[in-house]
Amino acid sequence: MRRSGRRPGNQDTREAILAAARTIFAERGFDKTSIRAIATAAEVDPALVHHYFGTKDKLFLASMDMPLDPGELVPEALDGPREEAGERLVRLVLTVWDSPAGKAAVALLRSAMSNEWTARLLREFIITQVLRKAIAELGMEGDDAPLRAALVATQIGGLAMVRYVLKVEPIASQDPETLVRAIAPTVQRYLVGELS
Amino acid sequence: MRRSGRRPGNQDTREAILAAARTIFAERGFDKTSIRAIATAAEVDPALVHHYFGTKDKLFLASMDMPLDPGELVPEALDGPREEAGERLVRLVLTVWDSPAGKAAVALLRSAMSNEWTARLLREFIITQVLRKAIAELGMEGDDAPLRAALVATQIGGLAMVRYVLKVEPIASQDPETLVRAIAPTVQRYLVGELS
Repeated sequence: MRRSGRRPGNQDTREAILAAARTIFAERGFDKTSIRAIATAAEVDPALVHHYFGTKDKLFLASMDMPLDPGELVPEALDGPREEAGERLVRLVLTVWDSPAGKAAVALLRSAMSNEWTARLLREFIITQVLRKAIAELGMEGDDAPLRAALVATQIGGLAMVRYVLKVEPIASQDPETLVRAIAPTVQRYLVGELS
Repeated sequence: MRRSGRRPGNQDTREAILAAARTIFAERGFDKTSIRAIATAAEVDPALVHHYFGTKDKLFLASMDMPLDPGELVPEALDGPREEAGERLVRLVLTVWDSPAGKAAVALLRSAMSNEWTARLLREFIITQVLRKAIAELGMEGDDAPLRAALVATQIGGLAMVRYVLKVEPIASQDPETLVRAIAPTVQRYLVGELS
């Protein structure tokens, strides 16, 4: 049943767009989703989607209730000497997750792990918003760049899971710099070191 | 309301014991939970709990629907030359999760991540059934042994999350030996190498 006419309130329109975005991003993946397709599903004009959310990246982040934009954080973390990239990345992750935004991120990770559908959204997020931007920022050009970036995701994701979601001691209450010293060499090797 | 008398069927009794075990293990943690307390909560004789489930470890695994016993797997993985412990551990994890038991483990990890209560059970499992047994098996005696074991958990847990739950490529379909070569040095360093 097609509803007729525009929804009355702005809030309803925003919610309809976000719901359509979640469904279509999860179904087709980020790359194959267009603003136009989301607008059609939400029964609004594509210009309205742009008006409310800006870019497809921003709409994707909004549809996931993502409190932070890796498009801004990743370049900040990776800007600087290449040999310190691992250290800066681990420190940034701990700073962000130890901050108030971390609570929202825990909720997001929980929800994303809980079923296949939400896991797809998180996978799309990790690949398109984090890994792809990190690869571009570091100018990684080898065929193994996607593998390297995904290896970093295993270590960073596992750290977040153990420290913030499962809260396994002594990681949960360890001071951040001890963790940076222990884990940075791993991330550094995955980014630019020997893989075998 | 206290129900009177013993439950009629064995299946009901087993389920009542398992439900009581889940609640009490999550509330008090593994170490502070006794078979007696679980028997009391399930309104059965402690001897019956022993009869059905054997040890407290076994009851704990059964209460989590854990398809595998790390008490058997961990010693198997860590037995052998110390300098290859990381490699054997990563290979075992991939072998187990790539097997049919892996599907059950994915379901378990999903459920465990989804709320605070189930996360507590997984945390207790990781600490008492995996990390503690690994520390004992390797004869790790330093004050930093719990930190080292938990660091291993960040890498192994993150690998499982990215490969099996979120299915991020190219990790999801990567051949196991490539992953072993890339990740084993990390686990090896966390176990016995320099942490800072």
